Amino acid sequence: MTTLQDCRALDAQDPLHGLRDLFTLPEGVIYLDGNSLGPLPKAAPDRVARAVREEWGGGLIRSWNTAGWYEMPGRLGDRIATLIGAGAGEVVATDSTSINLFKVLSAALSIAAADAPQRRVVLSERSNFPTDLYIAEGLCRERGLELKLVEAEGIADALDERSAVLMLTHVNYRTGAMHDMAAVTRAAHAAGALVIWDLAHSAGAVEVDLRGADADFAIGCGYKYLNGGPGAPAFVWVHPRHADRFWQPLSGWWSHAAPFAFTPDYRPAAGIARYLCGTQPILSMTALECGLDTVLAAQPHGGMQALRRKSLALTDLFIALVEERCAGHGLGLATPRAHAQRGSQVCLTREQGAYAIVQALVARGVIGDFRAGIPDILRFGFTPLYLRFEDVWHAVEHLRQVLAEGEWKRPEFHRQQAVT
Amino acid sequence: MTTLQDCRALDAQDPLHGLRDLFTLPEGVIYLDGNSLGPLPKAAPDRVARAVREEWGGGLIRSWNTAGWYEMPGRLGDRIATLIGAGAGEVVATDSTSINLFKVLSAALSIAAADAPQRRVVLSERSNFPTDLYIAEGLCRERGLELKLVEAEGIADALDERSAVLMLTHVNYRTGAMHDMAAVTRAAHAAGALVIWDLAHSAGAVEVDLRGADADFAIGCGYKYLNGGPGAPAFVWVHPRHADRFWQPLSGWWSHAAPFAFTPDYRPAAGIARYLCGTQPILSMTALECGLDTVLAAQPHGGMQALRRKSLALTDLFIALVEERCAGHGLGLATPRAHAQRGSQVCLTREQGAYAIVQALVARGVIGDFRAGIPDILRFGFTPLYLRFEDVWHAVEHLRQVLAEGEWKRPEFHRQQAVT
Repeated sequence: MTTLQDCRALDAQDPLHGLRDLFTLPEGVIYLDGNSLGPLPKAAPDRVARAVREEWGGGLIRSWNTAGWYEMPGRLGDRIATLIGAGAGEVVATDSTSINLFKVLSAALSIAAADAPQRRVVLSERSNFPTDLYIAEGLCRERGLELKLVEAEGIADALDERSAVLMLTHVNYRTGAMHDMAAVTRAAHAAGALVIWDLAHSAGAVEVDLRGADADFAIGCGYKYLNGGPGAPAFVWVHPRHADRFWQPLSGWWSHAAPFAFTPDYRPAAGIARYLCGTQPILSMTALECGLDTVLAAQPHGGMQALRRKSLALTDLFIALVEERCAGHGLGLATPRAHAQRGSQVCLTREQGAYAIVQALVARGVIGDFRAGIPDILRFGFTPLYLRFEDVWHAVEHLRQVLAEGEWKRPEFHRQQAVT
Repeated sequence: MTTLQDCRALDAQDPLHGLRDLFTLPEGVIYLDGNSLGPLPKAAPDRVARAVREEWGGGLIRSWNTAGWYEMPGRLGDRIATLIGAGAGEVVATDSTSINLFKVLSAALSIAAADAPQRRVVLSERSNFPTDLYIAEGLCRERGLELKLVEAEGIADALDERSAVLMLTHVNYRTGAMHDMAAVTRAAHAAGALVIWDLAHSAGAVEVDLRGADADFAIGCGYKYLNGGPGAPAFVWVHPRHADRFWQPLSGWWSHAAPFAFTPDYRPAAGIARYLCGTQPILSMTALECGLDTVLAAQPHGGMQALRRKSLALTDLFIALVEERCAGHGLGLATPRAHAQRGSQVCLTREQGAYAIVQALVARGVIGDFRAGIPDILRFGFTPLYLRFEDVWHAVEHLRQVLAEGEWKRPEFHRQQAVT
């Protein structure tokens, strides 16, 4: 049996232990929901206050030039690039994940229509994050294409001479299952399809090598493992071999080759800048920059490789402790045990009461979340930047108590909320 | 001749004079660029700091429910609605102006295609803000339609049985010329076309009555006269007769009827909520709420009607003073003299040196902006919430000195910047 002492010993040896100091975490909270909203970087309040008071209040419109606002999408994009195996000048931070998916899927479909018009299928996973499927559903209807949804294990078989684009989320939001990006991309290319990767649960969480995998397009989220704050701008990457081939349809002025020339005719910027659209929310962008700093602070300690190593140790520990200490309470494991197939979260299943159990844990300060489905999911994200092995021990102890004492059956834990 | 004393007397009688206290304006600055970026509301630093420290830092993911984040697009939308003659539940604050235009133009074209497929022309003004034209250019190319651009005075004649959609910016960004929204909408409807109004330079600046004019769609900007901060989210309005008819193509999860049911199939929300897409930048949204408060603070003092009255008095005064005090320096007036045709800005022209004159004024603390074109434009926005008649006098005196002493010829005022 693993003891609290064992966990504390792991913390004492953890080379990333000091990074926890980069965050302000509320007293008494064990935060296992950084995969939904990363916590507050300690530097963010002052940095955002400076953007509000000095840059906006003092600099006013001049700050577009003097405070570097104009360069933010590219500057932040370059920093994100280092976390996902992309090159400098290949990523911009902008808009929302859904909107960026619309851009890259539009572009991918235009490329496919030009190069292989007989390919009429967009292939994805049935349990992909719904917004990805909604965006694809709309674009397929508009262009008269078929959106084909299969289970994860059926993707290889479903790739064929009709496949135009394979669109996948790298780490599944519900289960934490991770695709082998290089192998899946290879299989898709072998079948003649382009590949779009949604890195919402990958960027800052697991090692990603877009160029190494020879992927075509990627998008991702700023407010999960990148700790960019609520609704932080997302990001978009396009392989340079595609970037200049097509216009994406959200061809706003920020994607123009000369936005401040104010010419009536559209002429797209070169490279990834043509995937911008309108003006970006600078205050939220400023917070995102603080979030990126926290992830990049791991670089001297081994970077994404070290973060990944600790993430796997944390999720291994959580699985082991749940199985040791919560056995007999009807919990199942939705997340793969194999390291190569696991993201940075662990999802438990339970036939009944998953929602209320999550609420009872939240009331105890152990914040995870609930995702409805068949089966319902109790979802726990493990961010190695700020989580201690000791936290994992306490979280499982709380879970044990909530289950053993039937605490989750109290009516207050069954009330529905707007956002789950 | 108008004297500084006359201007001070106007300030002394101004019923809106006290609203200036709602803003933090830098010492020594006369800010005539609120049409590009509104200044900092005094309440914003503390409010944004609370969103950062308490809502994000303390509440973490729980704040989606407990801090009202989830309702922000609709809550802010309802407040914007009161400024533009729209009803409650008809507006959402979200995304950027360019992206919102893409949504409503897509929807309008779908409605036109269903109701009148023979109508194949999107009509707009050649001097419309370029991003509007770029978005329209892209959608027209994709759908095989024609984008027809005419001068403002040619719009009525250009409306015919081929017109599907008339897309106009209510107040021209370059000249400050304002369309008669009711008359133009009537003419477009008489010709069988739908009408989209871009309110970027109208919302919070001039009286707008979308329902009274029977308009079809509108979009607008949060960071100009609504004082929402750099890159603040924009807004979108759809007449209820159209809102439920079509899906807009940016059909992300926030536009779903049940976003947290996580179903793979898209089912649009009823009403304006289907014009949302993804997660919104909450920190920037929070600043926007502070900005809206400043405009709504005019309600007890006569609201938009009183703001409009003062705006016209300010722009009248500026024109008069420029003509009195800067005669003989080659300045022209691009903005209409007739009140009914003027927004809340005054644009001057000059054959040479417009850019450098603006830079020389900025160096003196008089912040306006430059817009390239034929002719080049010196653009000055007049926001009655915080500008005094005395400020207008001093601004013109600075302009006079810059011109009379040839100050603008100095090399430092000719250096180009990324953002003009």
